[in-house]
Amino acid sequence: MQATLALAQEAGYAKLSIEAVAARAGTGKHTIYRRWTSKGLLFLDSLLSLNEPALDYPDTGDVRADLRRQIHAAVDLLANPPWGPLYQALVGEAQHDPAVAAGLNERFIRPQADKTIARLKAAQDRGEVSSDFDLDLAMAILSGPLYFQLLITQEPMTHDYVDRVLQALFAGMSPRH
Amino acid sequence: MQATLALAQEAGYAKLSIEAVAARAGTGKHTIYRRWTSKGLLFLDSLLSLNEPALDYPDTGDVRADLRRQIHAAVDLLANPPWGPLYQALVGEAQHDPAVAAGLNERFIRPQADKTIARLKAAQDRGEVSSDFDLDLAMAILSGPLYFQLLITQEPMTHDYVDRVLQALFAGMSPRH
Repeated sequence: MQATLALAQEAGYAKLSIEAVAARAGTGKHTIYRRWTSKGLLFLDSLLSLNEPALDYPDTGDVRADLRRQIHAAVDLLANPPWGPLYQALVGEAQHDPAVAAGLNERFIRPQADKTIARLKAAQDRGEVSSDFDLDLAMAILSGPLYFQLLITQEPMTHDYVDRVLQALFAGMSPRH
Repeated sequence: MQATLALAQEAGYAKLSIEAVAARAGTGKHTIYRRWTSKGLLFLDSLLSLNEPALDYPDTGDVRADLRRQIHAAVDLLANPPWGPLYQALVGEAQHDPAVAAGLNERFIRPQADKTIARLKAAQDRGEVSSDFDLDLAMAILSGPLYFQLLITQEPMTHDYVDRVLQALFAGMSPRH
């Protein structure tokens, strides 16, 4: 898995192949194919084996500050090597390989969504988040604008961008009277 | 370009090659390479040549209804063949090929963002949208949750999902007192 990440960083994901990984790792490609049926699944396992920050939410009693801290940490991860470009390549592969998409959701996205919902539920119970706010949408609404920046516009993600998004989401688009 | 789309739909984008397109179109691959330097750029041109809906915003004076109508049309496009799966493959390629990402932004995303901002600016001027709402974020905030669904969870996008997202974005996460 180290050979996979090293090669992906050196030459880019498009040029990665199980043959090249086998050569770098000094093993046979059949050994690799026995465990991973595609290069996308090998790459998923390799990336998730990296020692990334836990991306847990603190609970200081101030939900906005806590979301801000967690999302800043996520942006620090996504905006920088090695995780950022590798994660971007993984999401790219998930558009072509349904097994990669399923693994990514099950092992990374769903656990993050559960943490997000739990933190917001606690805030809702204390009256810090609108009781109307649909928690099932929380992950899509909070992280959607980040993914749009990472995958579509590919402009730099910054703490300032996160702060502006949070400000807009808490305030809402309707005028307050 | 028709050969490109036909092949991408039949065999999937991963198996698409300029050689295969040349064979299907009955031309030489050098003829294609003279105009498109990568399969990603050929695919971008081919997809954007499809006669898709204009995705313009109506202006009936009711911004929420107008956004809803435009986003429903966008979802109808993104959730169905041929555009949906081809567009998803294109965004996947944009994660590996910066020229594809730049072309996608310049020719599709930026014009859509400009239309979104113009429609919301008109609404802001009439007091229908909070004067605090940062229009530069409009595209990321409105379409981010759709892209999250299309690219990450890959769950079906529905009109109901759009309605729930709009409801949450207009209301905001803060409790209203």
